[in-house]
Amino acid sequence: MDTSFAPSLALFTDLYELTMAQAYWQAGRTELATFSLFFRSYPPDRAFFVSAGLTDVLDYLENLQFSAADLAYLRSLRRFDHGFLDYLASLRFTGSVRAMPEGTIAFANEPLLEVTAPIIEGQIAETYLVNQVNLQTTLATKAARVVHAARGKTVVDFAARRTHGVEAADKLARLGYLVGFAGTSNVAAGARYGIPVSGTMAHSFVTSFPSELEAFRQFARSFPDTCTLLVDSYDTLQGVRHAIIVAQELRQAGHRLQGLRLDSGDLLSLSRQARALLDDARLHDVQIFASGGLDEYGVDDLLRGGAPIDGFGVGTKVGVSADAPWTDCVYKLVEYAGQPVLKLSTGKQTLPGRKQVFRRRTADGQFERDVIACDDEPPPTNAEAMLVDVMVGGKRIRPVESLTELRRRFQSESAALPKIFHALRSPPKYEVAVSERLQALQQRTSAAAAARELSAPHEQHPR
Amino acid sequence: MDTSFAPSLALFTDLYELTMAQAYWQAGRTELATFSLFFRSYPPDRAFFVSAGLTDVLDYLENLQFSAADLAYLRSLRRFDHGFLDYLASLRFTGSVRAMPEGTIAFANEPLLEVTAPIIEGQIAETYLVNQVNLQTTLATKAARVVHAARGKTVVDFAARRTHGVEAADKLARLGYLVGFAGTSNVAAGARYGIPVSGTMAHSFVTSFPSELEAFRQFARSFPDTCTLLVDSYDTLQGVRHAIIVAQELRQAGHRLQGLRLDSGDLLSLSRQARALLDDARLHDVQIFASGGLDEYGVDDLLRGGAPIDGFGVGTKVGVSADAPWTDCVYKLVEYAGQPVLKLSTGKQTLPGRKQVFRRRTADGQFERDVIACDDEPPPTNAEAMLVDVMVGGKRIRPVESLTELRRRFQSESAALPKIFHALRSPPKYEVAVSERLQALQQRTSAAAAARELSAPHEQHPR
Repeated sequence: MDTSFAPSLALFTDLYELTMAQAYWQAGRTELATFSLFFRSYPPDRAFFVSAGLTDVLDYLENLQFSAADLAYLRSLRRFDHGFLDYLASLRFTGSVRAMPEGTIAFANEPLLEVTAPIIEGQIAETYLVNQVNLQTTLATKAARVVHAARGKTVVDFAARRTHGVEAADKLARLGYLVGFAGTSNVAAGARYGIPVSGTMAHSFVTSFPSELEAFRQFARSFPDTCTLLVDSYDTLQGVRHAIIVAQELRQAGHRLQGLRLDSGDLLSLSRQARALLDDARLHDVQIFASGGLDEYGVDDLLRGGAPIDGFGVGTKVGVSADAPWTDCVYKLVEYAGQPVLKLSTGKQTLPGRKQVFRRRTADGQFERDVIACDDEPPPTNAEAMLVDVMVGGKRIRPVESLTELRRRFQSESAALPKIFHALRSPPKYEVAVSERLQALQQRTSAAAAARELSAPHEQHPR
Repeated sequence: MDTSFAPSLALFTDLYELTMAQAYWQAGRTELATFSLFFRSYPPDRAFFVSAGLTDVLDYLENLQFSAADLAYLRSLRRFDHGFLDYLASLRFTGSVRAMPEGTIAFANEPLLEVTAPIIEGQIAETYLVNQVNLQTTLATKAARVVHAARGKTVVDFAARRTHGVEAADKLARLGYLVGFAGTSNVAAGARYGIPVSGTMAHSFVTSFPSELEAFRQFARSFPDTCTLLVDSYDTLQGVRHAIIVAQELRQAGHRLQGLRLDSGDLLSLSRQARALLDDARLHDVQIFASGGLDEYGVDDLLRGGAPIDGFGVGTKVGVSADAPWTDCVYKLVEYAGQPVLKLSTGKQTLPGRKQVFRRRTADGQFERDVIACDDEPPPTNAEAMLVDVMVGGKRIRPVESLTELRRRFQSESAALPKIFHALRSPPKYEVAVSERLQALQQRTSAAAAARELSAPHEQHPR
């Protein structure tokens, strides 16, 4: 088989979504279904999620359409009915979506979004929706932890070469900025999303010159006001002394060395020694930037140790969320044709029916407690409904939010999340309750499924 | 700043690659440079890498070109010289690449590829090259370990919803097939790369029907010859009994149930019980397929335990290489204008100069020992040169290899890798030596750099 072509995003779906779709279609079972997307549990050391991915999800749903080439490929598989393929040719997403806006803080088991649509439309969208919300929430949550660890110091995304692909790199840059990073080194992401870009220099630049000092001087000539020198190519403290020479030359010429970057060795001790050398040379305004295997744990250790570091570049470990590269994100059918449904699989039981998440705040605006409820329950006193209508009839019903708005939202969400849940290691669990009505619905639905399914087949279906 | 547009792949580079490029250009330092891409160390439990990503790397280099919109964006940053941006407008990759073909087994510290080009071209390519080789080698290596663990049983990629984005999902599907998976659930990847697609059904299908048995019957009606039933939505063994009813109905109608899938619970015990129930019903040809959090460790445990499982679907943990989501992949300048260079940073010293990797095999064709050498050294007796010319003057000099060829290559490489290095846990280290000439070159280059850089700045540069 060599059918190679560039498929549309509609074809980014698991084969079973399409085979199930055909079976629904052939059975005439095409009524409205609600799917609930949520995280079943927290990865290690996490106490919250930063909801992310909704912008891409809504773009996908608005544009969902199989191309002629997609359909020709499906036909070539010889598994699909021609009538069904004709149906797929005209398929568009006509359903509705209720979701937590991007940048909202969410907790385990809470739906981040619910899709209500004819079952085939909701089913086919599963693969992309889970992929994007899982990826983006995982990365945004990791990046938010770095921002918490950095206590207001500058953080810049350096992960472009380390993420799982270009798409992930661009999305990480956007999400980093959303949660408070100062910018990214990734120029494409800067262009695509309008994020500030920044950068220093690499070892290759230094080693390509006859000497470190010549390399520094040339870089300063090219960027006399935006120059950060990488000082560890040969010997870090000697590199700092070379940077000081260049800083003094720049100062004499009316410019200023912005900073120097440490990228290896004991960053705590080296940053102290570098700061002392700079201060001795009265270069108090030259900043120290650190990178090299840092994530929230490394940043926290350095700042607890009192490292005089002004900014951090975070790459590899943040780019892949190294300590928790995946999250248990699922998309479950919770209602079909008006009836609540669930599965009973060991340890994976779900909450049936359409839902809402209510969040209560303390008098000073801090998050106090969430309740997962049926979607038509009245809100508890002083509680806010977290899922809002974002798409109806396959079209967005709100304008696309700018990255600046999302960044502002996260900042306010983060400020409202009590500090104990910011803990980087073994945070406590935020309270998420299930409403009495939803509990009762779950019990009823479970009991009905158990009564129906756990009897012996021959009793149930005499033949 | 809201410059949002879709940048070309050329802009997928770290800002410092472009600022360094401007500094090289302004200094008139634009001679040939060689960059060496390699993995500095093994992630836990790894003893080899499956070299991957070269196809995308060569596509990128052949098409490297800044668009007018890219250049307008760079101009808007107000950091770049107009003359330099004009130079970038006409920049194409004109260099050469020597590489291990995709699917080759490689070891730590061995260059997987070397780029020789005018320094600016080689420098700008760094971000994309490292991103792709790192991602693809990491995923291919993880997938190869699953194939080793599966001992010839079927493995299918189920990771589309779990990878870090659509790009990573498509690439994993391709790499899984390259190392021996039977196929993928990802329809877009099947289309893009001509990989067999396969799939079963989801819990949502089962729970959307009034009963499990009705769901199974409908699915069997739609796919009477390619139907694998998911049996754990309510109670696994009851689900197996329902599947047996459908299998018997299919048999009476002249069809065959392909298999059933277990996706939760104790897969060892459930697969035995399911097999026994199937065999009692004389359904010996109905296969058992298992999924749910499996990677090489889970597959190995099940098969060591004697689980009667015929095939495995691997998702999350393989899709993100969960136990080792990143690898220490670097791209280092090793030669500039004919002179070998290196950096001395603590613990990160590099091998200078253009290199070759020689691999010696035993009489029966097994890999015995590698030597990293200078590129113009004569090969040791009975040793094969692993880096081959793949691009000259910015153009591929060999036809693009088909995925089938790559799959065949990996199969033969894997067979030649002694079994002790297939060990999933704590494998021994394969011997990789550094030739005497390269050792001597490293010592000379280090000593020269140390003599030059480790003296006090004022002695070196009297002012």
